[in-house]
Amino acid sequence: MKSEVRQNKATGEWVIYAPSRRQRPEDFLKEARRGSIPAYDETCPFCVGNEEMLPEIRLEMPNPARTEWQTRVVPNKFPALTPEVPKERIRRGIYLTMPGYGHHEVIIESPQHDRAIVNTTVDEMEIVVETYRRRYVTLMNEHENAMAILFRNHGVRSGASLIHPHSQLVVTGVVPRHIRRREDEAERYFDRWGRCVFCDILNFEQEDRRRVVAENSAFLAFVPFAAEVPFEIWIMPKVHQAGFGTITDAQKSDFAATLHEVLCLLYSRLDDPDYNYVINSAAQYRAEEPQLHWFLRIRTRLVTRAGFEIGSGMNINPSLPESDADFLNQM
Amino acid sequence: MKSEVRQNKATGEWVIYAPSRRQRPEDFLKEARRGSIPAYDETCPFCVGNEEMLPEIRLEMPNPARTEWQTRVVPNKFPALTPEVPKERIRRGIYLTMPGYGHHEVIIESPQHDRAIVNTTVDEMEIVVETYRRRYVTLMNEHENAMAILFRNHGVRSGASLIHPHSQLVVTGVVPRHIRRREDEAERYFDRWGRCVFCDILNFEQEDRRRVVAENSAFLAFVPFAAEVPFEIWIMPKVHQAGFGTITDAQKSDFAATLHEVLCLLYSRLDDPDYNYVINSAAQYRAEEPQLHWFLRIRTRLVTRAGFEIGSGMNINPSLPESDADFLNQM
Repeated sequence: MKSEVRQNKATGEWVIYAPSRRQRPEDFLKEARRGSIPAYDETCPFCVGNEEMLPEIRLEMPNPARTEWQTRVVPNKFPALTPEVPKERIRRGIYLTMPGYGHHEVIIESPQHDRAIVNTTVDEMEIVVETYRRRYVTLMNEHENAMAILFRNHGVRSGASLIHPHSQLVVTGVVPRHIRRREDEAERYFDRWGRCVFCDILNFEQEDRRRVVAENSAFLAFVPFAAEVPFEIWIMPKVHQAGFGTITDAQKSDFAATLHEVLCLLYSRLDDPDYNYVINSAAQYRAEEPQLHWFLRIRTRLVTRAGFEIGSGMNINPSLPESDADFLNQM
Repeated sequence: MKSEVRQNKATGEWVIYAPSRRQRPEDFLKEARRGSIPAYDETCPFCVGNEEMLPEIRLEMPNPARTEWQTRVVPNKFPALTPEVPKERIRRGIYLTMPGYGHHEVIIESPQHDRAIVNTTVDEMEIVVETYRRRYVTLMNEHENAMAILFRNHGVRSGASLIHPHSQLVVTGVVPRHIRRREDEAERYFDRWGRCVFCDILNFEQEDRRRVVAENSAFLAFVPFAAEVPFEIWIMPKVHQAGFGTITDAQKSDFAATLHEVLCLLYSRLDDPDYNYVINSAAQYRAEEPQLHWFLRIRTRLVTRAGFEIGSGMNINPSLPESDADFLNQM
């Protein structure tokens, strides 16, 4: 089977589909890993009773169905960026450098050390999403913060170093070039066609249906046409909305339900694969613009980025998006 | 220790240095893996005597010091791209796609299955480099080929699937966007300053010396100021030269010697770490331009790219380039 090269309509990047290098989805499966993880670990800083290992608890959200807390927000103990530094750029010979200004927080998603997505309720997921929203809005309201990256690393191959379920929020004082370029591409599209490129993609996928994996009234989840890795999934609000911070209460429930559904689907169909997810949201100063659209992007870690990807910036994906969606939709 | 954010002068990308997340270089060390690998493997298509597993042998280079061949070039059995397809772009709904035009070859570097870099002579390395050069020039002479990515994956974490020492060459009919952007940045720098940004970096590093790890008359090897990963190393020709294809015989010897020295250094100081290397060379139609400069880039796989890197395009590197160079230079 010959390869096909597809263009990501939002960024212009090309992705190579090489079905001759394809593994069957079953080949991605590995031995189940859960079960051997205890419900409590005395060395885990996120477990109940080990609070003295935490530098501080910034926010705690209750779970109405239980007496315990559901989520906690704590500073990252080894922060990549910290707030108490100036933002000025400094010349070092021919180079530019600056202090590492920013915030780095951890969102603990459950008091339970071994909580898996399939043992989580949609209500619990909604509390996690509300925690995301609160910290996002609070930090984006400080004018020196330009960008917030909300992400989750799941499994060793994703770069996760702690098993206890958690997400992270990193806030930067600059808009990373990679994101500026993505926003510039969307702006060019808007200038040319007068429409948000992500709305166009969403409408096409909703109609085409070949790559859809979940849908409710406010969100659509689909494998993108130019997915960079097997089982990449985008969860996108159906109404135009540039920044994650403006999500409404009704949307929040639908978002939590879709995210829960998709993560459970990956867990059960691919035997708890390692993945990263990231909320791609507009930079703060662009959070109201008509050409940007936030979405959550899940990338599994089933294949390894190698020399070609590093050198060319193009991904080689051994499986076609339509096949991935079919596999997930089989019951 | 506070973080520092450095700018890559050639691309404008920022990298976060987070020494509080730092592991000591010793922490990167792992149990030695060689020794258990046999000198011959009957299931390996690259081993002597298993030629029937190869689709074809395109080039074979002798080793004057031995009776056996030293290198072989064979088509990749599971090619990401193939030449027998048209290059036209096709509309699929709102999307663009095209057949996967290109070439995908494997350069077998030694007849010996378990050959490690420390058991390789500089003369053998020079034959490998000459093999790179020949296939590079041959394929870049075909006018439908725009770009060649020459790379090596070493170790499981680098994405390598076969142990037998080999490199790969992928030729594309388009210039990937990632590379076009890098070239555009270099062009802007040239337009503004009238100089090649890579020559400026090279001269600065050669004088500064804090990040230099190897040097001979034609090549400088250094950890770049804004290294994206621990122990990233650039090996760069000292004279201005945009395309790898125009390397001279004298340069070739010096390049092989530097590459050999640096790979041996990594092997012995970091206990055979997994890595990728890529030759970054100008696109064919720009191979003579004054603003581009080829170099070989080594990226170790000692840390894992996680959600933040995926979402922001910025890297978090736990170790400073100067510390990496110091560690490699300690005797």
